[in-house]
Amino acid sequence: MFLAYRVCMTNEGHPWVSLVVQKTRLQISQDPSLNYEYLPTMGLKSFIQASLELLFGKHSQAIVENRVRRRALPWLILTKRGGLWLVRGGGGVCVPTELHGLVFQDMGFTVCEYSIWDPKKLCVDPNILLNVVEQIPHGCVLVIGNIIDCKLTPSGWAKLVSMIKSKQIFPFFDIPCQGLYTGDLEEDTRILQYFVSQGFEFFCSQSLSKNFGIYDEGVGILVVVAVNNQQLLGVLSQLKGLAEALWLNPPNTGARIITSILCNPALLAEWKQSLKEVVENIMLTKEKVKEKLRLLGTPGSWGHITEQSGTHGYLGLNLKKHIYIPKNSQINFSCINANNINYITEGINEAVLLTEGSEICLPKEKKL
Amino acid sequence: MFLAYRVCMTNEGHPWVSLVVQKTRLQISQDPSLNYEYLPTMGLKSFIQASLELLFGKHSQAIVENRVRRRALPWLILTKRGGLWLVRGGGGVCVPTELHGLVFQDMGFTVCEYSIWDPKKLCVDPNILLNVVEQIPHGCVLVIGNIIDCKLTPSGWAKLVSMIKSKQIFPFFDIPCQGLYTGDLEEDTRILQYFVSQGFEFFCSQSLSKNFGIYDEGVGILVVVAVNNQQLLGVLSQLKGLAEALWLNPPNTGARIITSILCNPALLAEWKQSLKEVVENIMLTKEKVKEKLRLLGTPGSWGHITEQSGTHGYLGLNLKKHIYIPKNSQINFSCINANNINYITEGINEAVLLTEGSEICLPKEKKL
Repeated sequence: MFLAYRVCMTNEGHPWVSLVVQKTRLQISQDPSLNYEYLPTMGLKSFIQASLELLFGKHSQAIVENRVRRRALPWLILTKRGGLWLVRGGGGVCVPTELHGLVFQDMGFTVCEYSIWDPKKLCVDPNILLNVVEQIPHGCVLVIGNIIDCKLTPSGWAKLVSMIKSKQIFPFFDIPCQGLYTGDLEEDTRILQYFVSQGFEFFCSQSLSKNFGIYDEGVGILVVVAVNNQQLLGVLSQLKGLAEALWLNPPNTGARIITSILCNPALLAEWKQSLKEVVENIMLTKEKVKEKLRLLGTPGSWGHITEQSGTHGYLGLNLKKHIYIPKNSQINFSCINANNINYITEGINEAVLLTEGSEICLPKEKKL
Repeated sequence: MFLAYRVCMTNEGHPWVSLVVQKTRLQISQDPSLNYEYLPTMGLKSFIQASLELLFGKHSQAIVENRVRRRALPWLILTKRGGLWLVRGGGGVCVPTELHGLVFQDMGFTVCEYSIWDPKKLCVDPNILLNVVEQIPHGCVLVIGNIIDCKLTPSGWAKLVSMIKSKQIFPFFDIPCQGLYTGDLEEDTRILQYFVSQGFEFFCSQSLSKNFGIYDEGVGILVVVAVNNQQLLGVLSQLKGLAEALWLNPPNTGARIITSILCNPALLAEWKQSLKEVVENIMLTKEKVKEKLRLLGTPGSWGHITEQSGTHGYLGLNLKKHIYIPKNSQINFSCINANNINYITEGINEAVLLTEGSEICLPKEKKL
């Protein structure tokens, strides 16, 4: 049993697809008015606009303010094709996962990996994040993934912002599945609005494959937030050159389906509802896992399972059986369903009993 | 009027789409058995196999021989995403078009552009090709586009092969629209089989967007022909690393449609027939242009128009009116239809009359 698939799984053990996607796909294939011509190098305009509004909110203060003040639009958007890349090239980068590391390594970056999960305290620790930022080199790129569970205090946020600014760290947000953390699209990207409000320049890659269930199209955008128009134009020109050499014309299918959904209020509502249902289902699975472990009398505290948001979560132990989990113990809870939950929780229980007292890191009762 | 669109146009002035593609697209969208999961990094296997057979022929001697002799399969195939790239990195490259140049320039190559069209003799000149190969630096990459109209003699071929070998030039074939030159799929890629038979190692990029009419998906493959298995594995490993960092999972839509067509004999026959019709239509357009110019009494010889294969062809002059053609005078004849042929040929006639006797290069009567 492999519990670390990248994507959200259904109760039947298949990758999840929002029902509204299937409906829209069929609609599109029957529409004789559509053409299948080349897209512009920088992507389908309506798709970019819709994705951007999804990320920052249609009425987000930042966007509205910028329009009102007639400043240069601070976002340059680029269709992102599968990989993330940063134009600077070279230098150091600090990444939250191995996969991010591979992407940056290929471009000549010196890569270091960080994790904000504390395997002893069994929680995402804001202090670890602050330590990471304190220790990484000046001028480094910092890739920030899902930190929704990282509950920074107001003074923690202030410290984070001041360190990033003074050390000239370049933030690169990665939003691989907006809406699949809390079930609320706005809640999942609140951090972007915070960084905009603090006057940062940053990159943000947004993938829309997982939250729509279009896994075979790698659809998404790269957003650049610059501090002024001149800088934006410079970046734009470099990115355009790269895009011309890399793909020239991006693929349409995924972008077309998603645009149709995001621009139609009825379809949009259906999609939002489907995200809510997925997340509720995952929370239910987590509750069940915790309850089964309690009934089995498994030693340790398992509250951390339900305290984490989203499909993926740290189980908090190393275990072997025929259950395979990554070294860091982060698993995809949507891989657990009615058919395998008993096998899995019994496996966890057994592993815990067998290794109790040994040096292997196990969940211990939390000190309150 | 712009006459240099990259793609094949219908009589109505729209980008051409093979009817069988529309049918297949609809079929696929209604098939509940299909999933939309991630493709492997190196692409959809059935698509790669089908594209490969299209390029080299299902029963091509080279493939059969290699299987019989149980040699390592000499092709490593990689889904090509929009751009071509060569792993060597750096060095010199000689390209037939500006667009190829941009791609290689981005990777740090020193680029030089060549053309085998002789604007004086109004034909594709085999001697120019031989001269190009003679003059480019040792160890250079040579991108070879459509040279079907380049009628090398047997001794010319021998000279070409011997120069490429002795100068260690690395051939990189680009097949952007197989079947749209002569209307015959095999005829259009005969040169590949020749290079295989001569024991060359080479790259070949095949785009399938234009010959199916799926312009918005950039679907195609990169084929590597190596001389031995060890070398092949080395290239494979490098390319796989690049593919992981660049796209991780390639897009499916175009590959799925094309595979469905290529693997179904009835659909395949329909597609082949549609290619034939397109090419016949273009030849008819060329005949009409020539005839109209004759009727207008336009000075010069215009036989070169019908002597060239495929959608694109050199008009053989520089002209301005409201007709815009590239500097090298190569236009897309499928852009000419019943609605604009009079305007265009009259424009050509006018331009020729106005500039006759001047230094501007015009088609002159050929010396036989």
